[in-house]
Amino acid sequence: MGSLLIKNVLLDGKTTDILIEDHRFKSLSAPAGTAADEVIDAAGMAIFPPFYNTHTHAAMSLLRGYADDMPLMKWLQDYIWPYENKMTRSDIMEGSRLAVREMIKSGTVFFSDMYFDIEETISVVQEYGMRAAVGVTFVGSHSKSQQTEKLDMLHHWVDPSGGLITLTVAPHAIYTVGPDLLVKCAATARELGLKLHIHLSETRSEVDDCVREHGMTPVRYLDFLGFLGPDVIAAHVVHVDEEEASILARRGVTISHCPCSNLKLASGIFPYRMLHEAGCRITLGTDGDSSNNNLDMREEMKFAALVAKMDSGDPEVMPAGEALDMATRCGAEAFGIDAGVIAEGKLADALLVRLDDERMQPCHSLVSNWVYAAGSSCIDTVICNGKVLMRNREL
Amino acid sequence: MGSLLIKNVLLDGKTTDILIEDHRFKSLSAPAGTAADEVIDAAGMAIFPPFYNTHTHAAMSLLRGYADDMPLMKWLQDYIWPYENKMTRSDIMEGSRLAVREMIKSGTVFFSDMYFDIEETISVVQEYGMRAAVGVTFVGSHSKSQQTEKLDMLHHWVDPSGGLITLTVAPHAIYTVGPDLLVKCAATARELGLKLHIHLSETRSEVDDCVREHGMTPVRYLDFLGFLGPDVIAAHVVHVDEEEASILARRGVTISHCPCSNLKLASGIFPYRMLHEAGCRITLGTDGDSSNNNLDMREEMKFAALVAKMDSGDPEVMPAGEALDMATRCGAEAFGIDAGVIAEGKLADALLVRLDDERMQPCHSLVSNWVYAAGSSCIDTVICNGKVLMRNREL
Repeated sequence: MGSLLIKNVLLDGKTTDILIEDHRFKSLSAPAGTAADEVIDAAGMAIFPPFYNTHTHAAMSLLRGYADDMPLMKWLQDYIWPYENKMTRSDIMEGSRLAVREMIKSGTVFFSDMYFDIEETISVVQEYGMRAAVGVTFVGSHSKSQQTEKLDMLHHWVDPSGGLITLTVAPHAIYTVGPDLLVKCAATARELGLKLHIHLSETRSEVDDCVREHGMTPVRYLDFLGFLGPDVIAAHVVHVDEEEASILARRGVTISHCPCSNLKLASGIFPYRMLHEAGCRITLGTDGDSSNNNLDMREEMKFAALVAKMDSGDPEVMPAGEALDMATRCGAEAFGIDAGVIAEGKLADALLVRLDDERMQPCHSLVSNWVYAAGSSCIDTVICNGKVLMRNREL
Repeated sequence: MGSLLIKNVLLDGKTTDILIEDHRFKSLSAPAGTAADEVIDAAGMAIFPPFYNTHTHAAMSLLRGYADDMPLMKWLQDYIWPYENKMTRSDIMEGSRLAVREMIKSGTVFFSDMYFDIEETISVVQEYGMRAAVGVTFVGSHSKSQQTEKLDMLHHWVDPSGGLITLTVAPHAIYTVGPDLLVKCAATARELGLKLHIHLSETRSEVDDCVREHGMTPVRYLDFLGFLGPDVIAAHVVHVDEEEASILARRGVTISHCPCSNLKLASGIFPYRMLHEAGCRITLGTDGDSSNNNLDMREEMKFAALVAKMDSGDPEVMPAGEALDMATRCGAEAFGIDAGVIAEGKLADALLVRLDDERMQPCHSLVSNWVYAAGSSCIDTVICNGKVLMRNREL
């Protein structure tokens, strides 16, 4: 791996040269005359950490716009599931490619995925050089032999990318996976040192059904099963009470907040202030293209911040810097990726953002402009693990 | 004015050639061999109506990111008003230019403005060739001579653009303008055939103060004064009851819904379903860059639709086509602009949108992709009144 020099870039209000070597930020103030294998002149651009999307279904980009503006169960039963039943491996390849291209062009270098086939997604991620945590998905309707096959895959998988791709153990949800399989998933993840990825408390009916069936709410149920821990990524977490918030905080669970999907399906409003005040680790996800309908984490930050202010009735809730932190550093940390901030020694993941774009002007606050005003067209360059994935908006 | 031929463009699922002549759509299916002064090859692009932004403060783009994440009164009193007090005419010119460039690049061809000086804004609008309804703003704190000057301006103004720019009579709000001046503004507007533009029922405290001072809520108060009519554009309209909704519908008032600003300032949630069911004419506005913090009507459509679904608990509320209609046709109609739809005989305002952008793929629903998934970078070309304002994303 060679070296990359980013010249004349704006960082913390100053123009500087940044040297990347061996995948990491070697110096944030490289002296004049520093040589490197590749040089980018970033005059007129600022450097930002890129996005880490903690919950999506990449291949579902093929279903973008296929079914909108309808209730969740009608959407799933009459449209999404019948479509998915006809999807081939080549469809999954095509959908994953569309999603990966869309993500890089909107500044995302990592995503945590959950889908029913994974080889195609992994191959596209590797081809484009981004990071991913790809979920091996478990649902109760799988046969014993399918489950065994998935467990085998988890035990024997070797990362083809040299550190950019991991697997996660992904039981779909408490309403599609029984308690025994949930416990087995947790045990497997802990044995192999992998993360667990699950949908949790997304809708009111999920909560009501869980109380009826198990006599307790979903978070309490998963805690009762010993499932919850710092290795769990729980997507949505819309319908929880204060005690559940404190359970999630105590267990160190990572929440993947997906505001657009929750709003679009009218699932409910994420109780940001309560979960934040309880001390939960909150990250940001887009969910799939089929319920969002894009994978644009910049747009997702704005939705998260504005809806949190509205819901709490307090415009001071989730200031711009907090939204940015959630979409960058917190996501990277949750998956143990030593990146997500622009700092010496960290893995070199970064965006170069054009400051001459009208939306980035004037520059009273770079962070506010980036979170509230920018569009993905402001992103000039995307760097992942020291490698340039996009330059001048060309992949 | 010459003719413009748009070749190979997607319209209603078919590829066609569109001829524009004398500012209007002459033919939506021009025969092969049609000649024109200017030809655009729009292969791989779809044509959409552009956006009509019914409430903004263009020059406030200079205050983008200047003060965020704080309550409305602190924001106004400690930041916005002191800043505005120091603004010069050249600042207003600069802010208006920034806003106009931002608007065109995000697909807007018309805006309804409200600010304290107007000459600079008008001159920039004319320079860039877009449409505007520029508010001559009245506040009670103006001196008699300032008011007389504004009334004179309204009486003697001549549109320098040949039909693209109008003035509106813009009493700022019921809490900054007394009843006599409100009545005088309405009379002047009706005498001159101009629209009235006012902030209305934006915050809970505006309503409470109005009830305390006048014994009735803001909508009832304006109706009592004879202010309301089909020539009124009321911005925000967040805090209203069902009877007020029916008053607004009966009077034919146009509402400018500004979702991002309402959320960001935690002003409240726009009661879309109630106002829509009451039969109100609802259009879309961005408000100023200082409280949004951009002028991107595509993003505003997504916010409007998703928040309406969430607030009503019904994902069928405000489907994509309804959001698009609100941001395009309804806005044009409200200001008497014979445009906002792609139809023969209509004024030729249009966008050409790139279908090869990942966010526009696959194309199960062009409208859904445009409203929920696209970004302004998908916009290749902006046409206003038959003239190309942007081509290949270059102004």
